[in-house]
Amino acid sequence: MNTSDHTLSIFALGGVNEIGKNMYVIQSSDDIVVIDCGAKFPDESLLGIDLIIQDISFLKENKDKIRALIVTHGHEDHIGGIPYLLKQLNMPVYATNLTLGLIELKLKEHGLLRQTKLLLIDEESIVRLGTIRTTFFRTSHSIPDCLGIAFHTPQGTIVHTGDFKFDFTPVDNQSPDIHKMAELGQQGVLLLLSESTNAERPGSTPSERLVGDHIVDAFRDAPRKVFISTFASNVHRVQQVVNAAIKTNRKLALVGRSMVNVVSVAIERGYLEVPEGMLIESREVSAMDPEKVAILCTGSQGEPMAALSRLSSSNFRDIEVLPEDTVILAASPIPGNERSVSRIIDNLFLLGARVIYGSGTVTGMHVSGHACQEELKLMLTLMKPKYFIPIHGEYRMLHQHRILAESVGVKSNNIFIVNNGDVVDIVDGKAVQTRSVDSGNIFVDGFGIGDVGNIILRDRKLLSEDGMLVIVTTISKSQGKIISGPDTISRGFIYGPESEELIKEVNESVRATINKTRDFNRNQRELKQNIKKSIEKLLYSRTKRRPMILPIIIDI
Amino acid sequence: MNTSDHTLSIFALGGVNEIGKNMYVIQSSDDIVVIDCGAKFPDESLLGIDLIIQDISFLKENKDKIRALIVTHGHEDHIGGIPYLLKQLNMPVYATNLTLGLIELKLKEHGLLRQTKLLLIDEESIVRLGTIRTTFFRTSHSIPDCLGIAFHTPQGTIVHTGDFKFDFTPVDNQSPDIHKMAELGQQGVLLLLSESTNAERPGSTPSERLVGDHIVDAFRDAPRKVFISTFASNVHRVQQVVNAAIKTNRKLALVGRSMVNVVSVAIERGYLEVPEGMLIESREVSAMDPEKVAILCTGSQGEPMAALSRLSSSNFRDIEVLPEDTVILAASPIPGNERSVSRIIDNLFLLGARVIYGSGTVTGMHVSGHACQEELKLMLTLMKPKYFIPIHGEYRMLHQHRILAESVGVKSNNIFIVNNGDVVDIVDGKAVQTRSVDSGNIFVDGFGIGDVGNIILRDRKLLSEDGMLVIVTTISKSQGKIISGPDTISRGFIYGPESEELIKEVNESVRATINKTRDFNRNQRELKQNIKKSIEKLLYSRTKRRPMILPIIIDI
Repeated sequence: MNTSDHTLSIFALGGVNEIGKNMYVIQSSDDIVVIDCGAKFPDESLLGIDLIIQDISFLKENKDKIRALIVTHGHEDHIGGIPYLLKQLNMPVYATNLTLGLIELKLKEHGLLRQTKLLLIDEESIVRLGTIRTTFFRTSHSIPDCLGIAFHTPQGTIVHTGDFKFDFTPVDNQSPDIHKMAELGQQGVLLLLSESTNAERPGSTPSERLVGDHIVDAFRDAPRKVFISTFASNVHRVQQVVNAAIKTNRKLALVGRSMVNVVSVAIERGYLEVPEGMLIESREVSAMDPEKVAILCTGSQGEPMAALSRLSSSNFRDIEVLPEDTVILAASPIPGNERSVSRIIDNLFLLGARVIYGSGTVTGMHVSGHACQEELKLMLTLMKPKYFIPIHGEYRMLHQHRILAESVGVKSNNIFIVNNGDVVDIVDGKAVQTRSVDSGNIFVDGFGIGDVGNIILRDRKLLSEDGMLVIVTTISKSQGKIISGPDTISRGFIYGPESEELIKEVNESVRATINKTRDFNRNQRELKQNIKKSIEKLLYSRTKRRPMILPIIIDI
Repeated sequence: MNTSDHTLSIFALGGVNEIGKNMYVIQSSDDIVVIDCGAKFPDESLLGIDLIIQDISFLKENKDKIRALIVTHGHEDHIGGIPYLLKQLNMPVYATNLTLGLIELKLKEHGLLRQTKLLLIDEESIVRLGTIRTTFFRTSHSIPDCLGIAFHTPQGTIVHTGDFKFDFTPVDNQSPDIHKMAELGQQGVLLLLSESTNAERPGSTPSERLVGDHIVDAFRDAPRKVFISTFASNVHRVQQVVNAAIKTNRKLALVGRSMVNVVSVAIERGYLEVPEGMLIESREVSAMDPEKVAILCTGSQGEPMAALSRLSSSNFRDIEVLPEDTVILAASPIPGNERSVSRIIDNLFLLGARVIYGSGTVTGMHVSGHACQEELKLMLTLMKPKYFIPIHGEYRMLHQHRILAESVGVKSNNIFIVNNGDVVDIVDGKAVQTRSVDSGNIFVDGFGIGDVGNIILRDRKLLSEDGMLVIVTTISKSQGKIISGPDTISRGFIYGPESEELIKEVNESVRATINKTRDFNRNQRELKQNIKKSIEKLLYSRTKRRPMILPIIIDI
């Protein structure tokens, strides 16, 4: 077979220079495969935005070539965008058992379950997608049932690691498939895409199993009820909480919608073993001997509506945090969440609880799910790729991952740090990065996908800082005079009787501006501009604030 | 002297359960002394707020008794509120030389310098304030010229530590005055107020001097220009940057308004030694040999308008960050600033710079200015107070500080964790905490002090999330019909031609609601309510968003 008949390209459509909304695409001749479709949560600067997803213009333009979406694992930043993708483009979805379960939860919510073709794979599967033969290898991560993917194409093999760490003593005994990885490397990997989340951290990430021992100790030492909060999707850790409850003779209540949902999917599909009679309802907790009960809850990131936050502010039906109760935060705050997590810890201490949290001292209640530097070097060494693209990370992480790759022998010129939208083409076995396709952040706000853009966000920002002022005046064109108003309404700017004087000044100023105007017909637009300018100036000189000014002229 | 003739009380007016806006007050009989007057920067939930200061109702009600404001050191959270305090209540201000210099900068800005009585003290001063004899002891911290204060009253001695660490090899050779502290303890301390910032951290904080060695190494290794960013007020570190520049034969440019201001105050007052000809202007940088220049700049916390952020986005006049330049972040991000600092690091790497920053690996480019657990125990042991109030920290820090105090022998019942506003009264040598005075957060927004409250903030929040919609309709009461409109204007909600259909629906719905109304005179308020409700419902069903609706009815 002449490889030059075949084109081979890799597209980064999300997940580069960011944590979240992962989406990479491989095209071999006329066959396109999409890898992952995550969503990203907005930071506080994106006012009112619910979710951020990918720009999929490229996929829409090439929809006839799309063969599949393959999902590496069930985390939000890899599956959160799937409903929005499938609403725009239907395609078969391949994933492992647990991952499919979590995807189904989402599709149900969006009413997409019946129309979607879901296909079960595991690490032994071989999926033929046109010119691409796809095989898989098991990895370990902070959720079970994760896969790395090998795309065997006429031009060579491309490997995508998914998210991973090397946990050689995993809770579910499903070790990472290091022999298969070695074999792939031995057969020759043309290009490796490997995740970069912990590329700044030296050493190796400890095994999840270490956390289990600390949980058992804390459960044993707890004089009364124990609350433990972690990510619902970290089924390994949930299993260890269940085990600790068994060992210390406590019943377990699950609290928080996502905890209940994920645990039931995990039990149903055989990823979580919970003895009969172990689980209790949250309304049963208060009647029980506090030494005999534990509560596993959501909210470890300080989310204001989640269980832990509500428990910490005594705002949770059925269950109260009481003095001498123990609360374990079995997660580290994701950057940006530190303040809200700290506030929760403060409130829990105020309630008299014993709080076990990570700040300052290492409590052993959390380990990362991502490979640190030595593990990233192990992956690079196993795969010994000709070309390397560090993915899944902010720029400084990609940069550090590049340095790691160089240190284990990947040629500097063969490493590509791409941007979202960038394309790496393999031409006659040689990788080049010269072109890019549409990409970027699409905002979801309510039902709207992509309708909120920079203008709306800029207005929200202005409104949020100093509020606004609407000034309505009715004029008669024929009589050339004011009939009613000016009337001023403000929100988010000033309030109460102390501002009456200022409002009076505003109205007088508007009246003066209008009275100076001669021809209302010709100058409506200009008149509004003049009102806006003069009122802006007046208000800034009086208050040093810049509310949004909306002059409305009604002429009848 | 019969001590029971004298009352003695300690008031916490700010700085408890928070980092920022410190203010503690001591009243001995009819003599009131205020300790520190800080400001706090708002978090992102306080939309549009510039600064948070204390509620000083208590001080206003007792203004005739106020003898002085004593300031422990020159950090924002101890001096930032002074201009706002002095605008409301004039009082003499006592502080050390450098602290006075920094206070003067603020007073000048607010036009308060001439009317304020500033009094210079040092660690040898004895200040008599009515029944209170005040002495001082030197401490070390991340700014020079810090004092702890001992208030000798007829009922006993109260000690306030200010912010401190124990740095026994300080950069300026001004060691903490441990002998004087020991002597105070020996003479008997009735009550200790000690800061709690690092009460969660085990061990001791390393000496500032360690940072100096790392800076020299980095300057030496740098192949081209070096940028180094730190807090302007950390004069010790600035001195070490100057020293590193001398040692490596580099000229130094100062960049950022606060850096220039603070350095000139520090040089003027003898806290910083800079050789003649060492400093260059920023516009001279580009013409110089890159190996011979270093730039000391503000913005280590990721502040978007500060020098480092502007340099990282190539948006700084005169100076450019070029490939192979070195950028050192000599500060840790304060909780809440992680994301903006990370973004800057990403941008610097993108410019090709070598970036030395703290995440993941310890670079040795920053040490804290606050005492860790072993140092806090040292202070408690030196002072061996009968009563103890942990101050200056969020609740979990105060809680940990309480545990430390217990561990070195302070009786559990003699430790008070107070809230802002709480008062501890000493009655016949016995401390009780039963009452409180007004306290809380006063918001500064532009010229307004305290005029922005919950209603305005709630409106800003609503406006920021989904924007707003103004619907204006002109009706004739006499004719009982619509004359003009409804006209709809929206901001921050929807935009562009795709929303025309929706706006049409809104206007039709408003028209229908108005037409159903019989008596406009009687029902104006109700009519507006009806419009609001029906439009809210309509918009939520179409967009799943809840903009603020402002119906305006003009009747003529």
